[in-house]
Amino acid sequence: MRISIVGITGYSGLELLRLIHHHPHIEVSSIHATQSIGNPISDLYPHLKGICDLTVQPFDANEIMKHSDLVVFATPSGIASQLSPEFVISDFPVVDISGDHRLPPDEYKLWYKKEPVDYHIQKQFTYCLPEFNTSKNHRFISNPGCYATAVELALIPLLQNKLIQLDSIIIDAKSGLSGAGKNPTTASHFVNINNNYLTYKLNEHQHIPEIIQMLKHYDHNLQNIQFSTSLIPVNRGIVATIYCKLNNPTFTNQITATYESIYKDKPFIRILRTMPQLNEVVGTNYVNLGFRYNDKTNVLTVMVVLDNLIKGASGQALQNINLMYGFDETEGLCSVPPLV
Amino acid sequence: MRISIVGITGYSGLELLRLIHHHPHIEVSSIHATQSIGNPISDLYPHLKGICDLTVQPFDANEIMKHSDLVVFATPSGIASQLSPEFVISDFPVVDISGDHRLPPDEYKLWYKKEPVDYHIQKQFTYCLPEFNTSKNHRFISNPGCYATAVELALIPLLQNKLIQLDSIIIDAKSGLSGAGKNPTTASHFVNINNNYLTYKLNEHQHIPEIIQMLKHYDHNLQNIQFSTSLIPVNRGIVATIYCKLNNPTFTNQITATYESIYKDKPFIRILRTMPQLNEVVGTNYVNLGFRYNDKTNVLTVMVVLDNLIKGASGQALQNINLMYGFDETEGLCSVPPLV
Amino acid sequence: MRISIVGITGYSGLELLRLIHHHPHIEVSSIHATQSIGNPISDLYPHLKGICDLTVQPFDANEIMKHSDLVVFATPSGIASQLSPEFVISDFPVVDISGDHRLPPDEYKLWYKKEPVDYHIQKQFTYCLPEFNTSKNHRFISNPGCYATAVELALIPLLQNKLIQLDSIIIDAKSGLSGAGKNPTTASHFVNINNNYLTYKLNEHQHIPEIIQMLKHYDHNLQNIQFSTSLIPVNRGIVATIYCKLNNPTFTNQITATYESIYKDKPFIRILRTMPQLNEVVGTNYVNLGFRYNDKTNVLTVMVVLDNLIKGASGQALQNINLMYGFDETEGLCSVPPLV
Amino acid sequence: MRISIVGITGYSGLELLRLIHHHPHIEVSSIHATQSIGNPISDLYPHLKGICDLTVQPFDANEIMKHSDLVVFATPSGIASQLSPEFVISDFPVVDISGDHRLPPDEYKLWYKKEPVDYHIQKQFTYCLPEFNTSKNHRFISNPGCYATAVELALIPLLQNKLIQLDSIIIDAKSGLSGAGKNPTTASHFVNINNNYLTYKLNEHQHIPEIIQMLKHYDHNLQNIQFSTSLIPVNRGIVATIYCKLNNPTFTNQITATYESIYKDKPFIRILRTMPQLNEVVGTNYVNLGFRYNDKTNVLTVMVVLDNLIKGASGQALQNINLMYGFDETEGLCSVPPLV
Repeated sequence: MRISIVGITGYSGLELLRLIHHHPHIEVSSIHATQSIGNPISDLYPHLKGICDLTVQPFDANEIMKHSDLVVFATPSGIASQLSPEFVISDFPVVDISGDHRLPPDEYKLWYKKEPVDYHIQKQFTYCLPEFNTSKNHRFISNPGCYATAVELALIPLLQNKLIQLDSIIIDAKSGLSGAGKNPTTASHFVNINNNYLTYKLNEHQHIPEIIQMLKHYDHNLQNIQFSTSLIPVNRGIVATIYCKLNNPTFTNQITATYESIYKDKPFIRILRTMPQLNEVVGTNYVNLGFRYNDKTNVLTVMVVLDNLIKGASGQALQNINLMYGFDETEGLCSVPPLV
Repeated sequence: MRISIVGITGYSGLELLRLIHHHPHIEVSSIHATQSIGNPISDLYPHLKGICDLTVQPFDANEIMKHSDLVVFATPSGIASQLSPEFVISDFPVVDISGDHRLPPDEYKLWYKKEPVDYHIQKQFTYCLPEFNTSKNHRFISNPGCYATAVELALIPLLQNKLIQLDSIIIDAKSGLSGAGKNPTTASHFVNINNNYLTYKLNEHQHIPEIIQMLKHYDHNLQNIQFSTSLIPVNRGIVATIYCKLNNPTFTNQITATYESIYKDKPFIRILRTMPQLNEVVGTNYVNLGFRYNDKTNVLTVMVVLDNLIKGASGQALQNINLMYGFDETEGLCSVPPLV
Repeated sequence: MRISIVGITGYSGLELLRLIHHHPHIEVSSIHATQSIGNPISDLYPHLKGICDLTVQPFDANEIMKHSDLVVFATPSGIASQLSPEFVISDFPVVDISGDHRLPPDEYKLWYKKEPVDYHIQKQFTYCLPEFNTSKNHRFISNPGCYATAVELALIPLLQNKLIQLDSIIIDAKSGLSGAGKNPTTASHFVNINNNYLTYKLNEHQHIPEIIQMLKHYDHNLQNIQFSTSLIPVNRGIVATIYCKLNNPTFTNQITATYESIYKDKPFIRILRTMPQLNEVVGTNYVNLGFRYNDKTNVLTVMVVLDNLIKGASGQALQNINLMYGFDETEGLCSVPPLV
Repeated sequence: MRISIVGITGYSGLELLRLIHHHPHIEVSSIHATQSIGNPISDLYPHLKGICDLTVQPFDANEIMKHSDLVVFATPSGIASQLSPEFVISDFPVVDISGDHRLPPDEYKLWYKKEPVDYHIQKQFTYCLPEFNTSKNHRFISNPGCYATAVELALIPLLQNKLIQLDSIIIDAKSGLSGAGKNPTTASHFVNINNNYLTYKLNEHQHIPEIIQMLKHYDHNLQNIQFSTSLIPVNRGIVATIYCKLNNPTFTNQITATYESIYKDKPFIRILRTMPQLNEVVGTNYVNLGFRYNDKTNVLTVMVVLDNLIKGASGQALQNINLMYGFDETEGLCSVPPLV
């Protein structure tokens, strides 16, 4: 099977290229960007020397459809929405890692402040968090956001089982700097974020509507969430600390059983007896989840850690591609976390 | 005025020595430790070469009372409780930066898992968060903890004015590694915490009873708080993110006015219109506080940042000493944050 | 093929376990340590949950020889020297990642300040830098040190071809903190090394005699090297910057050709046209090497970067095992550097 | 005394503002930039709230000359050269922190690749490394570069006393990211430099001619130096490791005496018996210098550490201003290094 990656010079594009290199059944047939056209990728990135000698090409939908079986968008917001229609109209498979196809156009415009994709196109895309919505039998996949993946994996089991008070959900999420993209900005300048902790887009992050939309499928009474996002001085990683009150203190006995039964056959979700640390998952598609109940406050604290570039982006995209094409879900995604 | 510092080789001891160097009216007359006895401090720490040539001495209460006017304990938990009684009995002024005199003995034992100081001694100590409890006219001062300082400064104004629902308080606090002390441990090993985020002592941190005890003075109905503490890969700093629900959504208009009026004449508390970043205060005694109200969830988010070794320890101790002795509150504490 | 790892709780032991997990022909049959005996490794290290459920066992040479085909020592200095003789006497294959079998006993004692292994045992070990000394047909392998690997790969081609002045060699090497071992020390405390740069063991590093011993095989006139080692605030990595004067300025034209021809069929050595950056190789067994000649000073600057835990320790050990057993040299070592 | 700072939004400008805040005799009368005009500096930088309420102004030479006694350029390369002539012609004092007046125009053009200042203007400027060239009685000061300061302080005493072989000098210098300026670039993106080590401008750094020009005053036979510059993942700091061969091995006895006598009355230069660590000086105007001689290689290794924004830029500028105006050299520069 052959795929084309659009947006190869961004972090998600490079990460997908890296992951697919270990995949026994998938090959990257072309890589596309708007800059560095004509250069071998290994000249631009010496870490790829001897590993990948593809040349960066300009985007060309017809060419891609001719030589590939699937196109992946690893592009900044506002690009995939412009480029996807041609593929959809031709019924050519698409996986969009960006947020361009996750929300209905009006919601998208409100939260992303960009021109949305056409409503008929967006409707064709399926939002696939693989532990809940398999991409099997779908051709147009919208890949979940990094924060959204962490929060949804923590909350869906609790909502499905009516364990928590809906108006009590508070999410304090932290991200490494690769989540802010490769474009140099004041916020991502080393001197600014090293030794620092920085909260941004409080109550305004574009993953809020994505999360609510998904959670409503499991409890349509859910209206809103309180959601903070902060940058921590690490390269990779999402840490989501989630607070919520139990509907009944006795439910505490059900939490372990709930999580363990729901994620029993999910190879990437690991339920811990301890609170997870970020370095347990970095470099892999794993999600570590831990929790503790405080009977003095009736608050359940759930912590989820994942790698924003893998389970939060390119790894999850590959997991979705595996499911679409009937490969084992873990192909290309079996690496062991390095810890150090 | 002359002071002696017990525990000079710890971070708080070294930081107090550094701060007092800039103080026009206070001199450090002796420095004490249990190791490195007899060595000039500038041989142990080349950063002090040419600045301070005091020699490390063994602890000797009588000697301290002879040549000093005040003793400061900058010792790990469980030390000051053993050493303070001799001074208290002699009515010799004491400032304890450690937690040994903050809690009644039974509470101390429960949370610190160490032998408490005698009840009659502990009662003589006053817990002085200088913005609320001045140390003026007190001789035995218990200096607040770093997390506790951040949380109390955020919540007291809200409780005093009955603005928030008491059972809704959730605190997600983060600390730099100097807060974990100078003793090398697995947790403080560079390889472990660099690139990592680590939550510890969830619902079990010893600052919980200290915070509740203090807040109860402002609303005795407060029973408990939900309190998380995490280590982030920075050297210095406390970030406290506090979530609470307003008693009435219309109270949102009062929050700015409440904070600004309460902290109007407090030189170290700065109320911002933005969410504060850690690097705005590191290296100084300042506290930056910002907040935002979410009318969809009725949640008020308050963020407080401070330097754990200064406002959270030695700087606050010096502020208390200034007030005890009638110096200007800001003497020795006027440095400008370096930002970078 | 089955191997046993002694020293599983150190960084090299954990890294070897991780690498072998991806190896198609090798299985880890037992893991040994002096602490945490009886615990599943995945309880001690949640990053291994669901990946490896081996239990930590006490060291027992007979047991190892019964159920394994090879033993690897991933132990601190001074341990393998005590444990290896039993295996050597039984002619059971050993790979020692530590420095215990690299030097003749008198040299070892001088530089390591520890009791050396017996002379007859040490003589049986072969020092295998796989690009130059294959482990094929050897049973007792001494694995090169991390700094030594970097320096030898840079200098051997220059010495073999008599390109440089022997008394001009100056090496300024830097290491990440994992090189200092897992034991918490003042030097490895996060607060000490974050924001810092620290030179240690100047002219006294125990890799100096190892490097000289190896280089003398390529030019026996070499007497000494100038060698600095410093810690930089990163987890993994060796950066060796090497300065030397050319014997003749016209030799500059031969350098590229020399390196490229010598490393033509060496899958892990990559010769760049730019100066390498550390992040091009971290997480992999690759070595990136770049150089530049300054005709104003007649100084050639060569830079080598590698991952101290992989090519500098466990990856190289696995490379040696591959060669010993006739597997492809790259088995289990093909991962793509993540860059980010 | 009143000064104006041009380039207030850069790191050097902000640092100078911070340092002067502690100076008893100098006041900042105006701050200038090309952006953020009309904004109070404390709105742009919340760390300055309550400390400085000056408003950012556009550059206007006449206004500056009317209300100030001195202008400081804390601007990127290529700006001061355009703005200084008006002040020089009016005989109004100037301190240029940038490199624009350090080199003769033809050298400047060659190394900075920018249009140089007029030759007659450049000649009026005195390059003042205060330990060797006092700014007393000068009106137009060119402030040394950060790398140059470190290297010159290490080498001048050795050259003055003919202790070392001129053609043996090799400098391996490292800098924190603030040295690369505030403008976000790929190199300064957190994700790029965190966990990384990056050598740049090898043999091409613009401080090379500045260093040679200065050192030639102490030994005119010096022709060239070998000079490497690398970025390390810290915010502040220069580490210069300098290697050179002694003219005669017996000279080793003179080195300590030479450094100690030359720097005896220099309050900011500290000669250590150990190798200095970067964190001994960060946040201050101090320079720590240590060295060790290797009798096996006849190589003397000298290490110098300093804070690139203070002794390497704004602190040295203030030191120069102090000397120009007859203030004590250390006024405003007495802070104690924080270590942590």
